[in-house]
Amino acid sequence: MIRVHSVHNLHIVHRKNKPMYEELKSRVCAVNIALKEQGLVFQTWGNASAVDREQSVVAIKPSGVDYAEMKPEHIPVVDLQGNKVEGELKPSVDLASHLALYNAFADIGGVIHTHSHYATCFAQARREIPCFGTTHADYFYGSVPLAPPPSPGQVKDGYEWNTGVLIVETFMNRDPLSCPAVLVAGHGPFVWGQTIEKALENACVLEELAKMAATTLEINPKSMPLEDYLLNKHFLRKHGENAYYGQK
Amino acid sequence: MIRVHSVHNLHIVHRKNKPMYEELKSRVCAVNIALKEQGLVFQTWGNASAVDREQSVVAIKPSGVDYAEMKPEHIPVVDLQGNKVEGELKPSVDLASHLALYNAFADIGGVIHTHSHYATCFAQARREIPCFGTTHADYFYGSVPLAPPPSPGQVKDGYEWNTGVLIVETFMNRDPLSCPAVLVAGHGPFVWGQTIEKALENACVLEELAKMAATTLEINPKSMPLEDYLLNKHFLRKHGENAYYGQK
Amino acid sequence: MIRVHSVHNLHIVHRKNKPMYEELKSRVCAVNIALKEQGLVFQTWGNASAVDREQSVVAIKPSGVDYAEMKPEHIPVVDLQGNKVEGELKPSVDLASHLALYNAFADIGGVIHTHSHYATCFAQARREIPCFGTTHADYFYGSVPLAPPPSPGQVKDGYEWNTGVLIVETFMNRDPLSCPAVLVAGHGPFVWGQTIEKALENACVLEELAKMAATTLEINPKSMPLEDYLLNKHFLRKHGENAYYGQK
Amino acid sequence: MIRVHSVHNLHIVHRKNKPMYEELKSRVCAVNIALKEQGLVFQTWGNASAVDREQSVVAIKPSGVDYAEMKPEHIPVVDLQGNKVEGELKPSVDLASHLALYNAFADIGGVIHTHSHYATCFAQARREIPCFGTTHADYFYGSVPLAPPPSPGQVKDGYEWNTGVLIVETFMNRDPLSCPAVLVAGHGPFVWGQTIEKALENACVLEELAKMAATTLEINPKSMPLEDYLLNKHFLRKHGENAYYGQK
Repeated sequence: MIRVHSVHNLHIVHRKNKPMYEELKSRVCAVNIALKEQGLVFQTWGNASAVDREQSVVAIKPSGVDYAEMKPEHIPVVDLQGNKVEGELKPSVDLASHLALYNAFADIGGVIHTHSHYATCFAQARREIPCFGTTHADYFYGSVPLAPPPSPGQVKDGYEWNTGVLIVETFMNRDPLSCPAVLVAGHGPFVWGQTIEKALENACVLEELAKMAATTLEINPKSMPLEDYLLNKHFLRKHGENAYYGQK
Repeated sequence: MIRVHSVHNLHIVHRKNKPMYEELKSRVCAVNIALKEQGLVFQTWGNASAVDREQSVVAIKPSGVDYAEMKPEHIPVVDLQGNKVEGELKPSVDLASHLALYNAFADIGGVIHTHSHYATCFAQARREIPCFGTTHADYFYGSVPLAPPPSPGQVKDGYEWNTGVLIVETFMNRDPLSCPAVLVAGHGPFVWGQTIEKALENACVLEELAKMAATTLEINPKSMPLEDYLLNKHFLRKHGENAYYGQK
Repeated sequence: MIRVHSVHNLHIVHRKNKPMYEELKSRVCAVNIALKEQGLVFQTWGNASAVDREQSVVAIKPSGVDYAEMKPEHIPVVDLQGNKVEGELKPSVDLASHLALYNAFADIGGVIHTHSHYATCFAQARREIPCFGTTHADYFYGSVPLAPPPSPGQVKDGYEWNTGVLIVETFMNRDPLSCPAVLVAGHGPFVWGQTIEKALENACVLEELAKMAATTLEINPKSMPLEDYLLNKHFLRKHGENAYYGQK
Repeated sequence: MIRVHSVHNLHIVHRKNKPMYEELKSRVCAVNIALKEQGLVFQTWGNASAVDREQSVVAIKPSGVDYAEMKPEHIPVVDLQGNKVEGELKPSVDLASHLALYNAFADIGGVIHTHSHYATCFAQARREIPCFGTTHADYFYGSVPLAPPPSPGQVKDGYEWNTGVLIVETFMNRDPLSCPAVLVAGHGPFVWGQTIEKALENACVLEELAKMAATTLEINPKSMPLEDYLLNKHFLRKHGENAYYGQK
C-alpha cells in the first residue's frame, strides 16, 4: 500500500535529518507572502494552508508572524487532526477551521482565510455576494454564500473548528469546487481550490467580484442577479465538459 | 479589384515565409498589453482587436493567454467571417462579437472588450451611463447606452455573435463614432474607435467617466444629465466641423 | 510710470532676442506638469495659468498638448484681453475664463482649472461642498460654492468668458482669497491663489476635501456643516491676524 | 529616588552640551515621517508625540513643518505643563490636546492625531465607528467612541486643551488601552498606545477599520454590530489573560 510505503520513506528521511515536506512548505510560504503582495491582507490578517493527501499532512502559516520575514522553515506541519508533525512555531489560530474543510471537502488542496476588504465587508453586512454579472459567473456558480456566525456554545468550546463545521454545513447541497469560497458572518472569507495556488487565484477573484458587487449595489440598490441561463452559459463555457475558453 | 490583388499578395508572401500581418499583430499585441497596464483588465478579462479593411482580416488577442507573455507572433489573424488566416493559438472566445461590430460599423478600426470596474458595474446595475457633465460631453455625444442581455435562444446558439448583433441594433439610430462604447447588460463594456489605439483611449476615458458617474450618483442620487445645449457645445467644440480645441 | 517703463524694457529685450517671460513660463509649465503628477488631471483635462501684474500678461497651458512633452517654450503668453504676446501654440480653450478671473480678482496670481475626480462630481451633482469639519475650515472659510451653468445665450456667444463672469458673480459678496475655489455646475472646479504655486496647493486640498465630503455624506447622508464658531476658530487660527499655526 | 537621580544626570549631560532626549526625539521624528508614508496624513495634517514618564517630558512634531525635511533635532521637547525644555521650533498647535491625554491616561506612551480619510469622515458624520466584525474586535474592545465638539466657551479659551479634556471625559468609564482611539466630532481621530510605535500601529488599524465600516454601511445601511460574545472571544483571544494568538 502506497501510504504505508511513503510513511516508511518519511522515517528514513527523518533519520537522515532532511525534512520531508520541503516543497509543501515552500508553496505555503510563497502563497502566504503573495497574499500580502496582492493586497488581500493587512497586518497579519490572513493565512493560507495546503494539504498533502498522500501523507495526510497540512502545512499552514505560523500565528502572528510578519510576512516580510516568513521563510519555508517557519511553516509548521500538522496531521489532519492538528497534531504537530514538524516545525517549531505555533500554527495559525485558524488551523482548526482549515482542518474541518480538508476533512469534509475531499477534492480541495489549499485553503485561504483573509480579511480582504470587500469580501469582509459583505461578511460584516451579513450579505451573500450575488452573481450580478458574467464576470462572477465565469468563476463562481451562483452567489457566494454566507455561513451563520457560531452560537455562544460554539464559540465557547472549539470556536475555530466550529467555524469550519458551519462552513461545511453551508455546502451541504452544493459542490465546493463550483463555488470555492464562503463568507462567515461578522468575520470574513474562506476560499479554497484544488491547489493552494488555485485558492490564491480564487481569493483574488473573490475580492474583485465583491468590489464589483458593492459598486453595483451603489449604482442601483435594486440590482438583480444575472439570469440563470446566462450564469449557466458563462460558468460552463469555462468549467463544463464542453468548455471552450482558453487554449484547451 | 484591390481585394483580389491583396489576397494574391498574401499568397506570395506566405510562400516566402514572411508573415503578412506583422504591423497589425504588433499593434494588437501592444494594445492588449496596454489594457492590463492601464488597469482596465484583471486576470485575462479583456481583449482587443484591429481590422485591416484593405485585406479584410482581423487580428485579436488569443483566448486565456497571460498578458505578461503575449508577443505579436501569438496573435491570431482571421477573416471577417472568423476563418483562421494565420497563427497557432485560438482567438478570444469573444471574437464573434468583434466581427459583428466590424461588419456593421464600416468606419471603426479597433474593438476592445474589458470588464473594467466602473463600466462593468453600470452594466451589472443595468443602467446606461448618463452624461452628467462636460467631461463626458467632450468624448461621448450623450449617454453611453445599455444593450439588452441576449435571450435564452440567442445564448444557446451563436452567443458571442448575437451579443455583437444586439450591440449593433442598439446603434440603429445613432452614429457609432459619436458614441464609441456600449454596455452589455449583465456583462460589461465594448468600446471602439477609428483605430485600435483610439479605441484604447476611449476605453480609458469610458472607465473614468463611469467612475465619475458613480460618484455623482453617490453624492446626489437624483443628479440630472447635462443640459442639451451644453452637451452640444462641448462635443462639437472638440469634434464638430468648427472644432476649436487642440492645436488644429 | 512703471508700467510704461517695463513695456519699454520688454521691447529692448525682444530686440536682443531674449524672451521676457522665461520665469513666468517656467513656473506655468512646472505647475501644469505637477497637476498631472498629483493626479488632478486625466488625459489633458486641466490647465494652469499665472499673471504678471507688472507687465499685465498671462501665461497659460497650450490647448490639447500632452503634459509629458510640455516645455516652458511651449507656453503661450497673452495680454489681459487675450491678445497673443509670445509663443507659437494656441492657448487653452479655457483662456477667457482665466482672464475674467484675473480682471475681477485683483489679488490672485494664478488660476487652475481641472476635472479632478471628487470636485468635478460635486459640480456634476450640482452641490456645493459643505464645510463638514476642521480640515476644510483650515483652508476654506465656509462651503465651496456652486456657480450656475451658463444659459443657452451665454454658451452661444463667448462661452468661456461667460463661465468666468458667472464665477465672478458668485463671489459678489465673498472674498475670493478666503475661499479660493468654485465649482461650475455640470463642469468642474476652478481654483486660484496669490501665486500659481499656492493655487496648486489649493487645488490639491480642494480635491481631498471633496473626497472627504463625499465619504461623509455616504456615512451619514444627513451630515450637518461644522458649527460657525469652530469654522471661525480654525480658519482664523491659520489665516487671521492672530494666526498661531506654523512657525510664524 | 530614581526620578531625582535621572534629573541629576540630565543636568550633567546638559553641561556637557550633549542633548538628553536623543532617542525620544528620534522615535518621534521616525513615527511622524511614518504617518506620511503610511498615507495617514495629507499635507501637514497630523502629529505624533511620545512621553518619557521618567523625565516627565513630551517630544512632539513641530508646527507646520514639512515631513520630508523633518529631522530629530527639529523635534521640540516640553514638560507635562507644556513649557519648552529643548528645541528651537514651536511645537504643534495640538500640543495641549496631547498633554491632556498624557496627564489623564497614566499607561499611554504615545499619542497621534491625524486627519486620516475614513476615520475623519466618521468624525465629520458625527458617528462612532461600530464594531461590525472580528477584525475590529481583534483590536478595539467595542465601538470607537465620538467625543462631542467643544462648546463656544471651550473654543474661546484653551481650545486645544479642552479638546483633550473632552476626550478624557469620553473615557470616564472605559479603559483607554482596550480602545486606544477616539473621534472628535467635526474634527478627526486621536489615537494612542503604550508606546508611540504601538500608537502608530493603532492609527493604521483604525483607518482600515473605519474604511471597512464605511463599506459595510454602504452594502447594508442597517448593518448590526457584532454579537457581544464574539467581540469578547476575539478581543480576549488576542489581549486577555488567556490570549493564545501569536507566538506567545
